Amino acid sequence: MSRGESKGERTRAVILGEALALTSTDGLAGLTIGSLAERTGMSKSGLFAHFGSKEQLQQAVLEEAVEMFTLRVIRPATAQPRGLPRIKALCENWVAWLRDSPLPGGCPMLSASLELDDKPGPLRDYIAASQEKLRAFVSECARRAVIEGHFREDLDPDQFAFEMLGVGFAHSLTRRLLGHPEADRWACTAVSGLIGRSLAPGRTVESISNACAHQTH
Amino acid sequence: MSRGESKGERTRAVILGEALALTSTDGLAGLTIGSLAERTGMSKSGLFAHFGSKEQLQQAVLEEAVEMFTLRVIRPATAQPRGLPRIKALCENWVAWLRDSPLPGGCPMLSASLELDDKPGPLRDYIAASQEKLRAFVSECARRAVIEGHFREDLDPDQFAFEMLGVGFAHSLTRRLLGHPEADRWACTAVSGLIGRSLAPGRTVESISNACAHQTH
Repeated sequence: MSRGESKGERTRAVILGEALALTSTDGLAGLTIGSLAERTGMSKSGLFAHFGSKEQLQQAVLEEAVEMFTLRVIRPATAQPRGLPRIKALCENWVAWLRDSPLPGGCPMLSASLELDDKPGPLRDYIAASQEKLRAFVSECARRAVIEGHFREDLDPDQFAFEMLGVGFAHSLTRRLLGHPEADRWACTAVSGLIGRSLAPGRTVESISNACAHQTH
Repeated sequence: MSRGESKGERTRAVILGEALALTSTDGLAGLTIGSLAERTGMSKSGLFAHFGSKEQLQQAVLEEAVEMFTLRVIRPATAQPRGLPRIKALCENWVAWLRDSPLPGGCPMLSASLELDDKPGPLRDYIAASQEKLRAFVSECARRAVIEGHFREDLDPDQFAFEMLGVGFAHSLTRRLLGHPEADRWACTAVSGLIGRSLAPGRTVESISNACAHQTH
């Protein structure tokens, strides 16, 4: 917590943390001013003062999840040189995010993306813009790896991004719903395979060992 | 509609169809006796007489979606010989299901799988059992293709199933939420690639052309 934060900002951050944990397990549909009041012991009117409406609260929670993902997955990758080092870091961080999620019920952006895809409105717009930004970032990383000569010339960067996005969902399904402890290994093998078959001829890459080393066996 | 159906059974089938369309767009959270009464113009008490409770209604709707998927994707595949022909049919049918879904908002099992993964109860149990059955079926098809000598000996059938499951989710995200018309092609390329890299040395397969031929360009 930074020095410059007011008491109001600190309270808002605490509420957001609780709201994020609630959404992680119960989904956006389970996040209401009422359910949050119950969880935090605060009055509904106090919560309204901080977030205005259920929709604004929901958006604030998703923004918080996106910020967390950005800090843990995207930002450390952009600190790496473009091309293979960056995309390797991206994949490693992503697998680590799936494996050791800081959110008890997984990332609420995953379920919200399917839950709200048919519900026009500001929340859907926000989710779509965030997911498209992520998809485009992965695709751009892959495209850059082609330019750098790390990935093969005929690689389709959008295809790469599509297959990368599928890994997060398949992991969520097999680990969180089906309870397979091997899900961490499957996710790691899937991204390693994706990178491996994208490499330019003659190029090799160390296995994405950091991400796989701590997995459950 | 078969001859033996009573009026009650026909009414139930009509209600289920409406409930399935509603769940497809609004998710399980949007399916209540109230919202269904509004959509069908029936009384709440009439609906209660058919389904008993919201939970029983939700389960009946998911069972209907599973039945539809089974009829269109699984059953025609099991009519094919084991090994490559069966797995090729499975993948083609699956891509066709994603591309030309009979459900306006996509398969409610996808979103329900992420929405309910942290909510213990009979509905979660049903969803988990269905998804595990599908995962195990795909894995068993791949395992059988190894035994038949169609797939390479060191293939991990569970890894194959994991990557197959990811395709459906990635398609739903990129087409339904993000509105990319190329999503159909990405899904088709992903499953073709998955089969291609699973083949035993020296074996080839025609591209899964039926599934890709009608895609949107």
